[in-house]
Amino acid sequence: MSYTPTAYDPYDFANRRHIGPSPAEMEEMLKAVGAPSLEALIDETVPKSIRQDKPLSWAPLSEYGLLERMREVAARNKVMTSLIGQGYYGTVTPPAIQRNILENPAWYTAYTPYQPEIAQGRLEALLNFQTMVSDLTGLPVANASLLDEATAAAEAMAMAQRVAKSKAKAFFIDRNCHPQTIAVVRTRAEPLGIEVIEGDPAKLDAEAVFGALFQYPGTYGHVTDFTDEIAALHAAKAVAVVATDLLALCLLKEPGAMGADIAVGSTQRFGVPMGYGGPHAAFMSCRDDFKRAMPGRIVGVSVDARGGRAYRLSLQTREQHIRREKATSNVCTAQALLAVMAGFYAVFHGPAGLRAIAERVHFLTQRLARALKAAGARVSPKAFFDTITVEVGVGQAGILAAARHEGLNFRKIGTDRVGISLDETTDEKVLLRVLRAFGIDGVPPHRATLGFPEAMLRSSDYLTHPVFHMNRAESEMMRYMRRLSDRDLALDRAMIPLGSCTMKLNAAAEMMPLTWPEFGALHPFAPADQAAGYAEAIGDLSEKLCEITGYDAFSMQPNSGAQGEYAGLLTILAYHRARGEGHRKICLIPMSAHGTNPASAHMAGMEVKVVNSAPNGDIDLDDFRAKAEAAGENLAACMITYPSTHGVFEETVREVCKITHDHGGQVYIDGANMNALVGLVKPGDIGGDVSHLNLHKTFAIPHGGGGPGMGPIGVRAHLAPHLPGHPEGGPATDAGPVSAAPLGSASILLISWAYCLMMGGPGLTQATRVAILNANYVAARLSGGYEVLFMGNRGRVAHECILDTRPFADVGVTVDDIAKRLIDNGFHAPTMSWPVAGTLMVEPTESETKAELDRFITAMLSIRDEIRAIEAGEIDPASNPLKHAPHTVEDLVAEWDRPYPREQGCFPPGAFRVDKYWPPVGRVDNVYGDRNLVCICPPVESYADAAE
Amino acid sequence: MSYTPTAYDPYDFANRRHIGPSPAEMEEMLKAVGAPSLEALIDETVPKSIRQDKPLSWAPLSEYGLLERMREVAARNKVMTSLIGQGYYGTVTPPAIQRNILENPAWYTAYTPYQPEIAQGRLEALLNFQTMVSDLTGLPVANASLLDEATAAAEAMAMAQRVAKSKAKAFFIDRNCHPQTIAVVRTRAEPLGIEVIEGDPAKLDAEAVFGALFQYPGTYGHVTDFTDEIAALHAAKAVAVVATDLLALCLLKEPGAMGADIAVGSTQRFGVPMGYGGPHAAFMSCRDDFKRAMPGRIVGVSVDARGGRAYRLSLQTREQHIRREKATSNVCTAQALLAVMAGFYAVFHGPAGLRAIAERVHFLTQRLARALKAAGARVSPKAFFDTITVEVGVGQAGILAAARHEGLNFRKIGTDRVGISLDETTDEKVLLRVLRAFGIDGVPPHRATLGFPEAMLRSSDYLTHPVFHMNRAESEMMRYMRRLSDRDLALDRAMIPLGSCTMKLNAAAEMMPLTWPEFGALHPFAPADQAAGYAEAIGDLSEKLCEITGYDAFSMQPNSGAQGEYAGLLTILAYHRARGEGHRKICLIPMSAHGTNPASAHMAGMEVKVVNSAPNGDIDLDDFRAKAEAAGENLAACMITYPSTHGVFEETVREVCKITHDHGGQVYIDGANMNALVGLVKPGDIGGDVSHLNLHKTFAIPHGGGGPGMGPIGVRAHLAPHLPGHPEGGPATDAGPVSAAPLGSASILLISWAYCLMMGGPGLTQATRVAILNANYVAARLSGGYEVLFMGNRGRVAHECILDTRPFADVGVTVDDIAKRLIDNGFHAPTMSWPVAGTLMVEPTESETKAELDRFITAMLSIRDEIRAIEAGEIDPASNPLKHAPHTVEDLVAEWDRPYPREQGCFPPGAFRVDKYWPPVGRVDNVYGDRNLVCICPPVESYADAAE
Repeated sequence: MSYTPTAYDPYDFANRRHIGPSPAEMEEMLKAVGAPSLEALIDETVPKSIRQDKPLSWAPLSEYGLLERMREVAARNKVMTSLIGQGYYGTVTPPAIQRNILENPAWYTAYTPYQPEIAQGRLEALLNFQTMVSDLTGLPVANASLLDEATAAAEAMAMAQRVAKSKAKAFFIDRNCHPQTIAVVRTRAEPLGIEVIEGDPAKLDAEAVFGALFQYPGTYGHVTDFTDEIAALHAAKAVAVVATDLLALCLLKEPGAMGADIAVGSTQRFGVPMGYGGPHAAFMSCRDDFKRAMPGRIVGVSVDARGGRAYRLSLQTREQHIRREKATSNVCTAQALLAVMAGFYAVFHGPAGLRAIAERVHFLTQRLARALKAAGARVSPKAFFDTITVEVGVGQAGILAAARHEGLNFRKIGTDRVGISLDETTDEKVLLRVLRAFGIDGVPPHRATLGFPEAMLRSSDYLTHPVFHMNRAESEMMRYMRRLSDRDLALDRAMIPLGSCTMKLNAAAEMMPLTWPEFGALHPFAPADQAAGYAEAIGDLSEKLCEITGYDAFSMQPNSGAQGEYAGLLTILAYHRARGEGHRKICLIPMSAHGTNPASAHMAGMEVKVVNSAPNGDIDLDDFRAKAEAAGENLAACMITYPSTHGVFEETVREVCKITHDHGGQVYIDGANMNALVGLVKPGDIGGDVSHLNLHKTFAIPHGGGGPGMGPIGVRAHLAPHLPGHPEGGPATDAGPVSAAPLGSASILLISWAYCLMMGGPGLTQATRVAILNANYVAARLSGGYEVLFMGNRGRVAHECILDTRPFADVGVTVDDIAKRLIDNGFHAPTMSWPVAGTLMVEPTESETKAELDRFITAMLSIRDEIRAIEAGEIDPASNPLKHAPHTVEDLVAEWDRPYPREQGCFPPGAFRVDKYWPPVGRVDNVYGDRNLVCICPPVESYADAAE
Repeated sequence: MSYTPTAYDPYDFANRRHIGPSPAEMEEMLKAVGAPSLEALIDETVPKSIRQDKPLSWAPLSEYGLLERMREVAARNKVMTSLIGQGYYGTVTPPAIQRNILENPAWYTAYTPYQPEIAQGRLEALLNFQTMVSDLTGLPVANASLLDEATAAAEAMAMAQRVAKSKAKAFFIDRNCHPQTIAVVRTRAEPLGIEVIEGDPAKLDAEAVFGALFQYPGTYGHVTDFTDEIAALHAAKAVAVVATDLLALCLLKEPGAMGADIAVGSTQRFGVPMGYGGPHAAFMSCRDDFKRAMPGRIVGVSVDARGGRAYRLSLQTREQHIRREKATSNVCTAQALLAVMAGFYAVFHGPAGLRAIAERVHFLTQRLARALKAAGARVSPKAFFDTITVEVGVGQAGILAAARHEGLNFRKIGTDRVGISLDETTDEKVLLRVLRAFGIDGVPPHRATLGFPEAMLRSSDYLTHPVFHMNRAESEMMRYMRRLSDRDLALDRAMIPLGSCTMKLNAAAEMMPLTWPEFGALHPFAPADQAAGYAEAIGDLSEKLCEITGYDAFSMQPNSGAQGEYAGLLTILAYHRARGEGHRKICLIPMSAHGTNPASAHMAGMEVKVVNSAPNGDIDLDDFRAKAEAAGENLAACMITYPSTHGVFEETVREVCKITHDHGGQVYIDGANMNALVGLVKPGDIGGDVSHLNLHKTFAIPHGGGGPGMGPIGVRAHLAPHLPGHPEGGPATDAGPVSAAPLGSASILLISWAYCLMMGGPGLTQATRVAILNANYVAARLSGGYEVLFMGNRGRVAHECILDTRPFADVGVTVDDIAKRLIDNGFHAPTMSWPVAGTLMVEPTESETKAELDRFITAMLSIRDEIRAIEAGEIDPASNPLKHAPHTVEDLVAEWDRPYPREQGCFPPGAFRVDKYWPPVGRVDNVYGDRNLVCICPPVESYADAAE
């Protein structure tokens, strides 16, 4: 019998899982926006002149198909025991942390905690991280994470230059720093005109430098006390930076005790898998008087409307979106999720546990050194923690091969040495294999003696705060993690309509491979043949990104969007230099640009010229032309965002590119708004020479509560020879590295690859269309209540829309009031006061359903009604639901003295009833927090000292 | 330099992660209970006379070591594409369901939803499951899960006997039923004196039977309309049961439309991995007028104190703990977690998606049949859904080998046929391999034609409820799952001090291997050489359980505690029978026994004699002796629980065993309280012949919100030849199977194995000691407020304690009031009114920390203070915090007309402040729910029909 099959594909990931509105919902939404079809809406929105002519080519995989493919690829990686060290170490992720944090959408889908009331959980976790870093390094102030150790070192150099009273222009770097650290610092120094002096700290001329970076323990294992060198630096008014290892500091004298001003390093080995390079959280801590010069995010303690303790991000005014071209750092994305993990690792183990782990690693290293020496090997250094170097002469290749035969990777040092770093996962069985690689049978007995001078033993306490002494039973730990996550509002509970942030679905299938050991346990400097799976995955991702962007080559190295900008600009400068046009330094940037753009240009040593905006928000073409002409042969580049940060497809984009090219400049197109382009417009087609892609925006990497991110850059062919290189592998180019690992945070590239594979070309394109539909639907539905700015000349927005709230200033309602009132409705606020002060920028993304959009619209319109009541004089402008927002359970329990009922305060129309989200604190006092900067855990009497 | 290492082992899972109190906490607790040391407390509690002489032998693994070991074992399993069918099929678990339910402690650590106010989330999920089953089978009433399809069929037979008006004594079973179904039904029928007639339904003599079981589609693929046979049964006042497959029913005429009275089957292929046999949820649905005869748990709809809708378990009075020896079923544990998954699978796909999946499977099967027929093969049946049988004659072994060579398992049928069942994971590539195994190249083209008569096409709608039509975007689904889980209180937020239920930690490391494909994707009837990893794991677990219990052999087949009891009693009966003592049928059971004991004895066809309790709660030894003597040579067994259900180590246990043995009986020791024995006392040492272990109590399998469980039985050597057998493998014994799969819910055995491996022998023993310490600590601290019953002759309790609340009846306070008030404090209530009416039985387990115990104690003492206020006349006995408990947010928002403040109502001393758990509904009306039994989703206007 003939039969009509069901017209429904249950395995269609793009249209059934990833894209929010169902076909039926889209019909309704198109009616609301007054477009006859989705294609017609796109035609009205995206200029025909820039549309790509060929659709994206590849077919989608189902979720099941994806996981099969991922398993094939995973099987091509070869997991060896990597004892390479050099900043990356085996570690044991406590399973409860893996399951309840790394694999839990409540943690990984959260946004950066800019709205503190709905982020108390991760803020507390990050404060634990800061306390851990501060304690272990012996410096009072710490931030909540930088991208990697090498970047942190480069940031420390820049910071040292800012704070040093020395007038010297050079920066010293210890030759015992990790090679990738030296290389990244050099990359950073060059455009800033800083001379880098690499050498032996013992021979440092302190007068010649504004600062110095020492590594402790050194990359080859040396444990050295830098007290004297630091004193000399201080005498010369220079700044001392120590790159260090937190596990070593559980046993060794801390940098603070040596007088160090700044400490940096990685927390990878605190429970975060190596992941073939990342992501992991780097840290920075410093002296108290340097704290306002410290880059990155600092969690601090403040109070809420009822006077209770509340956490928040401190010193936000220092961030690059405020300082722009005066910024001294472009740090934006942190590694929040990984910092949370590392912080929890310390909570899980406490000081006794960490010290025991450090001892275990050290005693095993001691046994290794003893055995090798007993067998006549030449082992250095004399004082070590977990790393030794063995002179093997011409036997190097043989030893390395023997190690591989034992399933081990040693570090190849020069042509005649190997390095061996032990870690938490090393046990006697591994030691046996290591020694076997040297032809030695058996391991010497355990002895509890130190492999460094007693004077180097740490004498101070650390992790004395009660949180590190709470009971460490898994039930207690699990409940602590659950309680913290419940305090926060993330994508697993509600849409996060943050303009420019593209908070789309992070699908479970995309996340799963990340925690497979075949991907997690790879060292970034492992031999290439052990990473064939990664090569295949990342190679295919590169190809797909090239097809999507119209570029010819990609560098996966930059591990944040801002790093991508910086890397892209360096690539442009290297290109000019290679053509003998090193004088080209001017970079044109529109006024409406994201603050990282000028900050990155500044870091690249460029001279920023700001281009005006026309009244409609577009680039002022006349001004652009005039400034390009004025720059003339000094024009290096322009940096534009497309569609613009105002959410408009400017019809003049080709003209802007042409003007730039006509003057010999290169066009940098910021990929922040790529979610409005994929499958429709290729930046490489419309004149772009280089772009970075925020994979954590457009390509489904979760925001992790403020990182990780990835910002790979695509370039046209002529720029490919100038992409970032790397001392440990990567393309042979004329540029230095920008990240510690050749492929940045390689492991999360798998998420974006999974996303591309499951969406297929058609799905990605449809996602773009629906992102535009969703934004236009919100704009259309809200236009009764709010003025929507920058609608484009056909009355359409791109993938986001800007709502003007400035008119409400008359009755004292601020953008902040609306944001906090949205919390009562169960929503994260849209982007506030950017790109235009006094506005809200809404980006719903394609992943939100009509029902969720409608809930948001209901919330926004009800807030508008509340504002009208103030305008109409019906309610006190100083005491109303907006001013008291967000409402907490404490408000309900307490005496109610407000001119509106409890019901109205707590259950505005957008809020769920049964499933209401209750913020754990009322409105947080920002001024108090910045005035009283406390960024380590405050003493808490209520913690029980239960663990020991 | 010599150095004193830190005295702290961070990798000590037993003492640092699993066991709650830290060493320092234990010191304080020992002081509170007045014991000089833990060992001294144990000596006072556990009689010396029964203590084991040798400690448990094996050393512990760390979490990291465990996962390494698990990976080794996993690698020994060989994952092939199993097309064996026979009730188990490949399926695609939607990744979002895997991550957010199966791997989420909020779901898997929950208890059975007996306290509906804190279980609304899973009750809604289970109601979805029931609605799905009801709709697809076309029968109005469904329960929320049975253990497996074979058990469900056996339950249906027993139910049919209860409800049939026919006086016949025989039960007919379709020869096209799965062999394991037939075997389990036979096992069940035998002790009940039911004759089983196996045959061709077309030849059924309806007058000769009280009921019949047909399978549809049949095990060999047949799609048969049983309308006429059912009509004939009805004419004879007999009951028609249809075992069916929900995926097939998405295309095929449903059993309800044929007139069936009862439908049973498995929901495994709705997204639940095969797991080498389980766990998965079986279902049963029936006619409306049979609903009160249906075994198992039924979720129903009721109202709460404010009149809002609330879900609850209906008809709880039918459960075996009430009916005891009159019970007709011992069903207790369900498969809640798996039912939740299957229900969500239906929500994820909706009717259109399910139908499309069914079509896909069917059309592929059609193509397969066409290709085989075209090549000249003899293929049956004519009408099929997803399964065909191919006659291969003497070529059988060759075909099976060729299939294995292609990575496929076919079903071996007899000596000359093979069966092939396709499933959701089958695609053209698989089809190509199947045909290659037959020497056929290429696959025929897709054709949308049906492989069964048009009359068999389903004509009715299904899954019409809005929940199955909600938007199916992953964001929406994820948020729905999150909202439901947030409504519930599980172990991830608070201790669950349920006496006799042993709600201990379910550690993340123990759970992780479960979702590895090497364990999940194995068919239970796959060739043994493909399951070498399972064999190793389960073999080692068996050895360890033998060492722990003192028994000589274990059967892993029973997939619940009650099934274990039943299997154990059948083993005893088979032993007697083998010795020519088949007349031994009397089973002595103390009054204090758990209700499943008499229910299981009844099912085994035994005659239950109840033994009195002495005033101190112990077995009345004189009565026991008298009844044993009276039974004389008819004594089959006694069933005792040790320590007793009163939580006391009765000193007379050896005497009880001796009396039983002296009269030729066997001793069944219920393992429910094994958590008080492990490492200290072996049941096999003190006289037990057989015991079941609730692995979901003592051995860390999570309760899953009401299942899965596992109840393997250990026996002394003389009983081993009588353990359950299985038609598809297992030991050669003289007994039939009790479960559908030879190893029951094999995959979750890994959890218990992991627990044993990480704890090591010493850790397990210490856990027992601390379980006893925790219980005695609670008893000691609460003894000021409550009378603790049954303290044992040294004033000690075992691992749980019973609090008397009967004195509060004078002021109208019930045990229910206290339970609901505990919800306000953020706790699940202890076990209520069992084993003694009007009491609370508290079992803290070893996993709870002192802080959590103290919070519970604070809550209980504050409740006692509230009762005192009533006793003192300070507050209205009809309106006080106890009577209005639990308090909801709705109470806070509404007008407050109570004689106590909001603060007191909502924030009693045990409750968290910031992290307060708010029940989504007020107190649920039980009577209303049972009177108005609604057990499918009620219509909800608020759902949007958004999916299509």
